[in-house]
Amino acid sequence: MRHFKLTLAYDGGEFAGWQRQPTQRTVQGVVEDAWRAVTGVRSTVIASGRTDAGVHALGQVASVAGETRLPPERLWRALNAHLPDDVRILEVLEAPFGFHALRDTVRKRYRYVLQDGLDHDVIGRRYAWHVRRRLDARAMHEAGRVLIGRHDFSSFESTGSQRLSSVRTVFDLTVERRKIDLGERVVLEVEADGFLYNMVRNITGTLLAVGQGKESADWVARALEARDRTRSGMAAPPHGLFLLRVDVELPQAWDRSAAPPSDDDDAQGAD
Amino acid sequence: MRHFKLTLAYDGGEFAGWQRQPTQRTVQGVVEDAWRAVTGVRSTVIASGRTDAGVHALGQVASVAGETRLPPERLWRALNAHLPDDVRILEVLEAPFGFHALRDTVRKRYRYVLQDGLDHDVIGRRYAWHVRRRLDARAMHEAGRVLIGRHDFSSFESTGSQRLSSVRTVFDLTVERRKIDLGERVVLEVEADGFLYNMVRNITGTLLAVGQGKESADWVARALEARDRTRSGMAAPPHGLFLLRVDVELPQAWDRSAAPPSDDDDAQGAD
Repeated sequence: MRHFKLTLAYDGGEFAGWQRQPTQRTVQGVVEDAWRAVTGVRSTVIASGRTDAGVHALGQVASVAGETRLPPERLWRALNAHLPDDVRILEVLEAPFGFHALRDTVRKRYRYVLQDGLDHDVIGRRYAWHVRRRLDARAMHEAGRVLIGRHDFSSFESTGSQRLSSVRTVFDLTVERRKIDLGERVVLEVEADGFLYNMVRNITGTLLAVGQGKESADWVARALEARDRTRSGMAAPPHGLFLLRVDVELPQAWDRSAAPPSDDDDAQGAD
Repeated sequence: MRHFKLTLAYDGGEFAGWQRQPTQRTVQGVVEDAWRAVTGVRSTVIASGRTDAGVHALGQVASVAGETRLPPERLWRALNAHLPDDVRILEVLEAPFGFHALRDTVRKRYRYVLQDGLDHDVIGRRYAWHVRRRLDARAMHEAGRVLIGRHDFSSFESTGSQRLSSVRTVFDLTVERRKIDLGERVVLEVEADGFLYNMVRNITGTLLAVGQGKESADWVARALEARDRTRSGMAAPPHGLFLLRVDVELPQAWDRSAAPPSDDDDAQGAD
């Protein structure tokens, strides 16, 4: 049995999320189908976290174990040849025995893209949330700084998950206006050791209220302290969200008898 | 009767081109439907040229004449409220009597976007042509310089049009590699007083052969001289093509009895 680390990009627009479903098109479903077509054997492909329907990934990481004689480079080419054009495997690496993308993930970075202004850019419409009011990106950035550090993020966790702990460490959170080819975007990026369900989308909706001038930075600080989802802002829609990068710690001299995670960070699905 | 100049952007991916068709979704069709919904009267919306199925526009120009009391700003908002999200009207201006976007266009600029490399970017796949071989953008740029100026472009005109003249003046043609957020694109831009059918896509396919190292700049020069479509390269697919900008000369003291164009530049449909 060999273990592999896959790095993937996908356009979430036409997927019902990561997790395999009996009747819907999912990323896990098409990747597992490609794996079976290439190796002849069905295997489970495990992601660092289950992205929701409509959420994109530029650097999702997944693990898969299986019997195959193909070297990683050949696997990479063959899997891509069997994948639809809205999913690409960027890299296949042979991983140490027991590599498990969900359990071994130590850090993730997400991006949320907003387009502000009276009208939306037709070409970018699938990949940014359009808000009509001009946003104060600097105020969003400043208000977001209170979220950096180790906190209980209950106020930014949507219901539907049963995690034991809502404490996470946010290493970095920035909001900036970026010029793109023929327009501008307001780009939020956030990096943490793990994310609660809908956490990035809830943070984005909360900072949006600051960017629109409806709420203050102090309101964000109080929302965090309250540990109450009703005190923060709305959830931003999925189509502006991108999983940018996943950092894993590959098992080295790893105890093969360790139990699999049952109630870990993203086991119930994160952003 | 009032005359208006509309500037439009659209994602061509889900349209069967500009021109209204009885059973297919077209840009002209949805814009004319919006016009009728807003003004209560059916009018013909005339573009500077009919883009093909799959071709995008960031700055198409169209003319429309009709009876309405709405000021241009109100028309703009109301039309957009009636348009699907893959078409936006960027600007509505009141134009001099008799303004006709097809006849009064004096210059257009197109962009063709290529992505080169072993695999494609899933997010950009709808808006760039993916070619697996690394391209020499500098060689493409140099080879394209021979096309600048006033020439007979028969070698770059696809069949299916009946224009009287194949002579056009190309004012500018550049090819350059551009860094984008998480990757690179090879971007061709070309500006001319008019374009023959599929001219930009045929130029792109021809310069591509140079960028791939299959053909020389001299081959492009000979293809131009030959005035023979079989001597140039393949037509690039539509989804990498963008109509960037259209310059019109608004009629001033214009002879209202002038005949409409019958066999003009783009009357038969251009790129």
